[in-house]
Amino acid sequence: MDTTTAPLTRADCLALDAADPLAGFRGRFELPDGVVYLDGNSLGALPRGAAERAQEVVTAEWGRGLIRSWNTAGWFGLPRTLGDKLSRLIGGAPGETVVTDTTSLNLFKALAAAIRIQQQDAPARRVIVTERDNFPTDIYIAEGIADFLNSVAEHTGTRYEVRLVDDSLPLGEALDEDSAVVSLSHVNYRTGAMWDLAGVTARAHAAGALMIWDLAHSAGAVPVDLNGAGADFAVGCTYKYLNGGPGAPAFIWVSPRHQDRFWQPLSGWWSHAAPFAMADSYSAAPDIRRFLCGTQPVTSLALVETGLDVALEADMALVREKSLALTDLFIRLVEERCAEHPLRLVTPREQAARGSHVSFRHPEGYAVMSAVIARGVIGDYREPEVLRFGITPLYVGYADVWDAVEVLRDVLDSKAWDAPEHRTRHAVT
Amino acid sequence: MDTTTAPLTRADCLALDAADPLAGFRGRFELPDGVVYLDGNSLGALPRGAAERAQEVVTAEWGRGLIRSWNTAGWFGLPRTLGDKLSRLIGGAPGETVVTDTTSLNLFKALAAAIRIQQQDAPARRVIVTERDNFPTDIYIAEGIADFLNSVAEHTGTRYEVRLVDDSLPLGEALDEDSAVVSLSHVNYRTGAMWDLAGVTARAHAAGALMIWDLAHSAGAVPVDLNGAGADFAVGCTYKYLNGGPGAPAFIWVSPRHQDRFWQPLSGWWSHAAPFAMADSYSAAPDIRRFLCGTQPVTSLALVETGLDVALEADMALVREKSLALTDLFIRLVEERCAEHPLRLVTPREQAARGSHVSFRHPEGYAVMSAVIARGVIGDYREPEVLRFGITPLYVGYADVWDAVEVLRDVLDSKAWDAPEHRTRHAVT
Repeated sequence: MDTTTAPLTRADCLALDAADPLAGFRGRFELPDGVVYLDGNSLGALPRGAAERAQEVVTAEWGRGLIRSWNTAGWFGLPRTLGDKLSRLIGGAPGETVVTDTTSLNLFKALAAAIRIQQQDAPARRVIVTERDNFPTDIYIAEGIADFLNSVAEHTGTRYEVRLVDDSLPLGEALDEDSAVVSLSHVNYRTGAMWDLAGVTARAHAAGALMIWDLAHSAGAVPVDLNGAGADFAVGCTYKYLNGGPGAPAFIWVSPRHQDRFWQPLSGWWSHAAPFAMADSYSAAPDIRRFLCGTQPVTSLALVETGLDVALEADMALVREKSLALTDLFIRLVEERCAEHPLRLVTPREQAARGSHVSFRHPEGYAVMSAVIARGVIGDYREPEVLRFGITPLYVGYADVWDAVEVLRDVLDSKAWDAPEHRTRHAVT
Repeated sequence: MDTTTAPLTRADCLALDAADPLAGFRGRFELPDGVVYLDGNSLGALPRGAAERAQEVVTAEWGRGLIRSWNTAGWFGLPRTLGDKLSRLIGGAPGETVVTDTTSLNLFKALAAAIRIQQQDAPARRVIVTERDNFPTDIYIAEGIADFLNSVAEHTGTRYEVRLVDDSLPLGEALDEDSAVVSLSHVNYRTGAMWDLAGVTARAHAAGALMIWDLAHSAGAVPVDLNGAGADFAVGCTYKYLNGGPGAPAFIWVSPRHQDRFWQPLSGWWSHAAPFAMADSYSAAPDIRRFLCGTQPVTSLALVETGLDVALEADMALVREKSLALTDLFIRLVEERCAEHPLRLVTPREQAARGSHVSFRHPEGYAVMSAVIARGVIGDYREPEVLRFGITPLYVGYADVWDAVEVLRDVLDSKAWDAPEHRTRHAVT
């Protein structure tokens, strides 16, 4: 069935769900009754088995195994064993990824590594190119590193600089002989717009810059081929489309080109060549462990595996196909059924330019989303005015999209959003 | 009973346990049968209630609350709510501590903040003074920050330098007009030797340096009064004497003197003044949140509270009193009952110079500890040749110490350690 133009009813959606080759994955997740969950791009749902795994880690591994579990339960190796699994979802090879720390911290490591490589190869390059519309932490971390390097040393060369790509400064114009590194989010957290990973990497390289990708909104959601694109570094998180649990440790990937030469200043003992030799000076591990730092939060880290194992069972081509069908359907239904309301699509209509969520602006976006959530359709709100709906093909179906749009339509038609409880702001993550 | 000189039997130890005002805390922890656990200074035991809390976080808060739990379950505020509790154990006030990230990362933040303050106040000070015998990550992180600052900028001033205090360079000689910051572990991870927190802080300040304390082996184990000592920054971990769980997030404290002016380069969105405004440039929060960075591992973080709540119920003066009695007893029993074996005490005999663990060197230390562990007495081994026994007064008693020394004696007398399974090395954390 063509979901972009053909007439459609809820029964049609149920038929599509019945024919969905990924339908069986829905049962792999614990989802509360009465909820359509369209925020898996912020916090993925609970995979079945994760609660049991948490009990095992806490009661058996911590409680009974105690300190021995660092070895016997494989805790010490988790960043690499999980990293090897994750590599398969992003076009990496074993030994190129670790799961550790947070996306912000991993981005700091990747930026520092890129800056250090350029300092050796092309020391005049001191500009970090990123995007004004990037997820803010990506900008703040770039500012932090530049500010640190500029403030504590009297440079005889040029200062480090963060250059923000936006409508007035397209990427092509931002790249020049000063560019050290380009740091972009593959899929934009707000709009869902997706960069051409291979094409932009090639443009960065042609300009002499290194390329860092933030895959927070793409790992597990869209096909990613880092080695195919020849990227330099990548970071991302495990708690969105990979369903690793709230705030679960993030990942960082390094190209095999840099494996033996990259360096980063968060050089804690887990990145040492021989951490238990207790040497009194630093010697970096000869591999991806250089991106580790300190002792990891084992309970949160161990739960990442449950989500990864589910993701690895799914055919990513089917995931992408369903994601595009559902986002197409969502856009079409909203535009058909909420046409008289001031909604403006901010997500690209072109499939190749879109990740796996759909966003609309509405002048009362915050209150509208609050009212929609109160009726059991959980999307989220992002400044400014943006209603964001995440499509996670492993546990969201066609009828869910239908029902969500019906709730949105009803909230708009009835002006249910125009109530104090929906207009009052509090933090939304 | 005087445990330092009077004759002693196991029955005497049981009598001491019966009279122990802290004896009731033993029942607050789940400890496996047949084990004497003397490694709580590496990974603290499982407090009762932690497994139930883990289930609640995973099943109810993540599984049913989903994204809403960032607000409704208080996830977003955890670093500060836990930090306020932890402050009470280290002589801090509310608003001075956050629980976040790892000890290594927090040390990087504290060092960067100290360097930045000195860059403004006394820019010629570029030496980080630490200790050759410090826990290695503390040295490596200092090297990492100095190396980063030195390598990516052409300094017109002096280079950043890590200066290691050791037998050939006492602290007094290491401090001079170049010293920017002194970074020491309050209690040494290997020997258990304890610095005079207030005295050393005063010496650092007299020399014009700022003072950072690593409290990994002292928070929850010995009385700590950071504000009383006038320290500048402190870091430490929650998974040792605070029983927060394997690799649980660490803490960082800042003196109220620096609250409104410190800065650190790991400036992720959680440290922003308005993280959800999604501003395209960084503006630091006006308080301790400046030491936050990215999204925290909620499951591991939430479990910290269970251990903290137990620790806060205990009278720290009683904890210290019992710790000293048990470490005295351990030293005395080993020296009496293992006198013919080549054991050498590396922990200070003077009570005021000692934390809460006892270490002996033995030429076959690794194999000896392996054999001791195989008999159910869990201590650990640290290079070089060091047998380390952690005394956690909340769940270790006098008879435990008696039994542990008996096992050690038997392993040494019988040469049970001289077997392939004990001589074969593998990583011990």
